[in-house]
Amino acid sequence: MQSVAEYVDSLVCSACGAAFAPAQRHTTCSHCGKPLLVRYRIEALRGRFRPEVLPGRARSLWRYAEVLPVPPDPRWSLGEGWTPLLPQPRLGRALGLPKLYVKDESLNPGGSFKARGLAVAVAAAAARGVQQVGVASAGNAAGALALYAARLGLRAVLFLPEETPEPAVWECQIAGAEVHRVPGTIAEAGAAFEAYRQEHPDIFSVATLREPYRVEGKKTMGYELFEQLGGRLPDVILYPTGGGTGLIGMWKAFEEMEALGWIGPERPRMVAVQAAGCAPIVRAFQEGRETAAYWEDAQTIAAGLRVPKALGDFLILRVLRESQGTAVAVSDADIQAAMRRWAQTEGLLAAPEGAATLAALIQLQEAGWVHAEETVVLFNTATAHKYPAVVRQVLRQAGGPV
Amino acid sequence: MQSVAEYVDSLVCSACGAAFAPAQRHTTCSHCGKPLLVRYRIEALRGRFRPEVLPGRARSLWRYAEVLPVPPDPRWSLGEGWTPLLPQPRLGRALGLPKLYVKDESLNPGGSFKARGLAVAVAAAAARGVQQVGVASAGNAAGALALYAARLGLRAVLFLPEETPEPAVWECQIAGAEVHRVPGTIAEAGAAFEAYRQEHPDIFSVATLREPYRVEGKKTMGYELFEQLGGRLPDVILYPTGGGTGLIGMWKAFEEMEALGWIGPERPRMVAVQAAGCAPIVRAFQEGRETAAYWEDAQTIAAGLRVPKALGDFLILRVLRESQGTAVAVSDADIQAAMRRWAQTEGLLAAPEGAATLAALIQLQEAGWVHAEETVVLFNTATAHKYPAVVRQVLRQAGGPV
Repeated sequence: MQSVAEYVDSLVCSACGAAFAPAQRHTTCSHCGKPLLVRYRIEALRGRFRPEVLPGRARSLWRYAEVLPVPPDPRWSLGEGWTPLLPQPRLGRALGLPKLYVKDESLNPGGSFKARGLAVAVAAAAARGVQQVGVASAGNAAGALALYAARLGLRAVLFLPEETPEPAVWECQIAGAEVHRVPGTIAEAGAAFEAYRQEHPDIFSVATLREPYRVEGKKTMGYELFEQLGGRLPDVILYPTGGGTGLIGMWKAFEEMEALGWIGPERPRMVAVQAAGCAPIVRAFQEGRETAAYWEDAQTIAAGLRVPKALGDFLILRVLRESQGTAVAVSDADIQAAMRRWAQTEGLLAAPEGAATLAALIQLQEAGWVHAEETVVLFNTATAHKYPAVVRQVLRQAGGPV
Repeated sequence: MQSVAEYVDSLVCSACGAAFAPAQRHTTCSHCGKPLLVRYRIEALRGRFRPEVLPGRARSLWRYAEVLPVPPDPRWSLGEGWTPLLPQPRLGRALGLPKLYVKDESLNPGGSFKARGLAVAVAAAAARGVQQVGVASAGNAAGALALYAARLGLRAVLFLPEETPEPAVWECQIAGAEVHRVPGTIAEAGAAFEAYRQEHPDIFSVATLREPYRVEGKKTMGYELFEQLGGRLPDVILYPTGGGTGLIGMWKAFEEMEALGWIGPERPRMVAVQAAGCAPIVRAFQEGRETAAYWEDAQTIAAGLRVPKALGDFLILRVLRESQGTAVAVSDADIQAAMRRWAQTEGLLAAPEGAATLAALIQLQEAGWVHAEETVVLFNTATAHKYPAVVRQVLRQAGGPV
């Protein structure tokens, strides 16, 4: 099995710039502990890897094989990526934004965007001889890991906060993973996982940004936006931000696209959306800080946004500032209202994290931060079906028969 | 709004052959009450609509626009269709079938294959001035109807058996549909819906085969198989059969493909899979009948297979016989075992209806009905996330922590 794709050059630390050989198994930078990112031999791809080669390719993120770290193999794929970009005419009319779109990541295996990163990370780990993988997760990443581990014949060990929505837990269990439930947030689950790994060092962690490849799967969202908008990027992207891999990944994709000659220096304004009950990035952005302090007593119905401290905080904040973007916190009540409104006006079954982007857009539109002629993309990161307790709340509040 | 796509010729009764004009609103044949099917001007498409034109097209079923009854419009789409066809290497090895695939329909809007038919039917209805749509459904069709009705701004009225899995009910409610829950099976829900329509004649029924367009959406599964297998059809297709629209639709697609010159007279052997507790088609097939008698006291965990009588029974039975296919009934216990096995060996979260096809394949393989060199396609029609009660049962039986 070929473990490194043709155009991979090296792994480079996102903080100190140290470089590493991609064929070995790596976690974070062995010098400074910060995330490693994959560097490709872009100069060798310029003129060869062009948008014109894409149309006939696989209906998955593997259509971007030249800028992925492992060679595509249909035996490892569950059909991740290449999700639809849907115009939102009725919602757009109501908000005065005729060029409003949603990137609907619920049409991924397991019903969430986490499939992208885990498909690539598990394939990369397996190609390096890993036989046991593990993660602490708010739910969807664990579910995705369980599915891809089963697909590749690896053992998966998962640590989940006790409050994790049940469908994500079931997904792990039915796929045969070993599941540990931990009181507290993802922070406590992460600590429990690390303690467990002290005794079980053979378990390879695919935690957010703790290995270099999940972000490579996530970045394909950026390539897809370009392709699906007919060869350009939107003006504004609103993205629900827990660990931030998607924002960091898309930003990396845009840099690669510029190096490839697909786009110029222009960039979308990137908006990190968080829940008011757990908004470390929003606070750090507003305070002008380069990193985000731990958020005490994190609470929100959006399980994926219950991330008190992100390893990639400095990268997220850098992206927001370089892009002239911003960071917005929304209340749980506004998230619930947005879930209902989105389903009723456009037939979209948004996860609470996805609905947070609509709630944030309403704020930004009222503040005059977005303009009628701009192309705006909201990310729905998962299906509402993975959050039955939240859906029940939404329906109860609306007084409907539940 | 253009209501009829360019190459539509007429609507033709599947039983008596009477023809009707497509621009008008139609239900079933006004002469004999049997289903109407869409006839296209295939001779005008021969040589123009070729497989070679497809690769760059939309990532949805609308890539087959020439053989669809309404013109594509991204404002109406939720990204339905163009689901992955996934090789199943580990399962295939265990079963001695190296060319085993699953067509994973869970990657549709709302998480089920019902999106295909309803996307097309709702668009066709709206184009003919319909403002209220309704259906009686085992769950997934109602959910899909609610989503597409919301997307197009129509009112939806839905009749569901009381035992309908909750996620499908929520989906209808959050999208703003009017939901009626009825004791009994889909048969009782259907009767209640028809009674209601007597008092509310403005509600247009999109019940299975009661209008001509759902089957057109479903048939695209057949076109996709051809395209995704690189320009040929599989040897065997196993399909979970409630109302049977998918079987009938794919068979129609194959006939169109032959008329278009894409394929010759060869056809896959079509296998209808039903639950042992509700197997009217299997019984009728085994007894050599042309129609299927009503199945008394239908019971199975696979809600979509709880269909005691299908309007298209004579068409389903005809397809099974013309294709040299067969019909197989599987127990609920075998369905549950297949759900678990599929998740653990290939990371696939199959709905009970989808898992029934794997259980049926195991039977057919043991009976020597399928052969090692054959290309076999199983259909997973929805995600397990829409059946939480069944998943709970599966996990309980396995003794796992639930």
